[in-house]
Amino acid sequence: MKTGIFYGPGDIRVETRPDPTIQEPTDVVVKVTYSCICGSDLWAWRAINKRETGGPVGHEFMGIVEAVGDTVTKFKVGDLVIAPFSISDGTCPECRNGMTSACRHGSNWGRDDNDGGQASMVRVPMAEGTLTAVPDHDKLNEQVMRALLPLSDVLCTGHHVAVSAEVGPGKTVAVIGDGAVGLCAVAASKRLGATKIILISTHPDRAEIGQQFGATDIVDARGDDAVKQIKALTDDAGVDAMLECVGTDESWETSFAMTRAGGIIGFVGAPHAKDPSLMRMFRANIGIRGGVAPAGAYIPELLPDVLSGKLDVSPIFTLTIPLDDLAEGYQAMDERRAIKTLIKL
Amino acid sequence: MKTGIFYGPGDIRVETRPDPTIQEPTDVVVKVTYSCICGSDLWAWRAINKRETGGPVGHEFMGIVEAVGDTVTKFKVGDLVIAPFSISDGTCPECRNGMTSACRHGSNWGRDDNDGGQASMVRVPMAEGTLTAVPDHDKLNEQVMRALLPLSDVLCTGHHVAVSAEVGPGKTVAVIGDGAVGLCAVAASKRLGATKIILISTHPDRAEIGQQFGATDIVDARGDDAVKQIKALTDDAGVDAMLECVGTDESWETSFAMTRAGGIIGFVGAPHAKDPSLMRMFRANIGIRGGVAPAGAYIPELLPDVLSGKLDVSPIFTLTIPLDDLAEGYQAMDERRAIKTLIKL
Repeated sequence: MKTGIFYGPGDIRVETRPDPTIQEPTDVVVKVTYSCICGSDLWAWRAINKRETGGPVGHEFMGIVEAVGDTVTKFKVGDLVIAPFSISDGTCPECRNGMTSACRHGSNWGRDDNDGGQASMVRVPMAEGTLTAVPDHDKLNEQVMRALLPLSDVLCTGHHVAVSAEVGPGKTVAVIGDGAVGLCAVAASKRLGATKIILISTHPDRAEIGQQFGATDIVDARGDDAVKQIKALTDDAGVDAMLECVGTDESWETSFAMTRAGGIIGFVGAPHAKDPSLMRMFRANIGIRGGVAPAGAYIPELLPDVLSGKLDVSPIFTLTIPLDDLAEGYQAMDERRAIKTLIKL
Repeated sequence: MKTGIFYGPGDIRVETRPDPTIQEPTDVVVKVTYSCICGSDLWAWRAINKRETGGPVGHEFMGIVEAVGDTVTKFKVGDLVIAPFSISDGTCPECRNGMTSACRHGSNWGRDDNDGGQASMVRVPMAEGTLTAVPDHDKLNEQVMRALLPLSDVLCTGHHVAVSAEVGPGKTVAVIGDGAVGLCAVAASKRLGATKIILISTHPDRAEIGQQFGATDIVDARGDDAVKQIKALTDDAGVDAMLECVGTDESWETSFAMTRAGGIIGFVGAPHAKDPSLMRMFRANIGIRGGVAPAGAYIPELLPDVLSGKLDVSPIFTLTIPLDDLAEGYQAMDERRAIKTLIKL
């Protein structure tokens, strides 16, 4: 087979290697029909990320099943399969929770002795947990094949950033990053029913694709100017859903400024930002949400349950005092003699 | 009237001041019947937060309407009203989005010439946007009054942390912080239908209230030991929803370790943690969620729309090459000549 090999920044060569074979009964061997290059592949190419030399590259591909391991029943020789950019068993708690990218037995293409995806053939470990077959593929033309390939990464990533930010009917969305992921985030937002989809793009060719994918507004600006335009488009409030598809400190800054109070930032750009929590959140897809409770909005909602006696948290008041004893009420809480002090007038 | 006044850390005095009167046509004057002390009131008491002396204290109260401004129609003299801990107009975009605590015209008790809530009387600005009336209050006994008061802050805050972390039927929840907010978070999680509610508490008296409020499990441990116990209770995966009711670096560390991949951390403890993004998220209730897309889980979901032609993002492939030209494909993306390179085998 032929496979791309990383020899250093700016140096990737296509070499001939022995064809892959079934090694585990859960393996499948795929003859690749389409592959592509990811923005993240460029990190090592550009020497932004350090990478050892000599290993195979690429993690987005589709192809025809050439051989199946003994325990594989989900696929047969001749099937067209799409590979996602991570290898997963499909059965662990993470996979059952839909978090295949955090599979506890998972791995990645081009690591741990796995083949790379920019190759003519690939051995796929844990094939049943990893691959999806395309039904009736022999009837599909090349245009459909080109539309299927982005499912291996960039379309799912664009979908993920939109889902993470709870994009849905009626929502106002802004997308920062007009690369392939950002453009797919526009398409995914449209599919999910967003009402207003604002793409921040200073490149007319990319903005045009964005409009073709469903962007309702283009903001051709950066930084503060872009924030001002987004505010003007959103009643001076900011967007419901901010889709962060860049990952720099600057884009995070802009994203916060563009998001309305109570809104949510979805992010899929592997963060190169300084914030240590972000990388931790990124790896495990752990979200963070909260802040000052909008008590005024919640009181009418909770009031009926309190009045009916279904919701009674008054046992937290372990001390009751008259107003004149206010200082003692503070003191008791400070010394943890009281969980919470009630003042009865 | 009588009102608590802050004279410095550990020094709060109750003084007599002139009764408040209607100053704006949107005002209401309330005769306080119940008030209470918040954990956050202790920050200035303990000198953790710096605060100027001479100002009124308290922000959680309920009481009877004594006087109403000319434009107030929602309330009448004699109504029982509950005040949330923030003042809001109820009409701005933030309030319409349910984010009353981020009201662009809002204010706080004891600031900007507003009265404090630990007082016998309070002038309430923007009363119609701020207060909620309790229907048929003359029939309510003291136990119900005690159950109503937490709506002013701590119960709504407990509800908010649960809502923020998407607590609902079938969810597994852990609560860190066994103070009044944490205990209310337990009650709110039960009300929202959580299946398993784990309270981390090393204080038997608080754990007992937690169980009364709906905690199904108590983890009587801290740090790594607590994480181990949570993992043991959750198939070694962590919880779906982590409710952070402390706000220290240590509790954040523990919270991350206890949350499953794809889970979410709700937080309401005003963060004293080092992370600068958290304070920004806290003030405006901006959530962050995302990470490595679980493409393997999404492919089957998106595949039908791609096959039907409804979802075609192939225009992102602005360059198509044979595998042998792989390096040129990288180069073209590096130089931004291509948005994304497709490799056709």
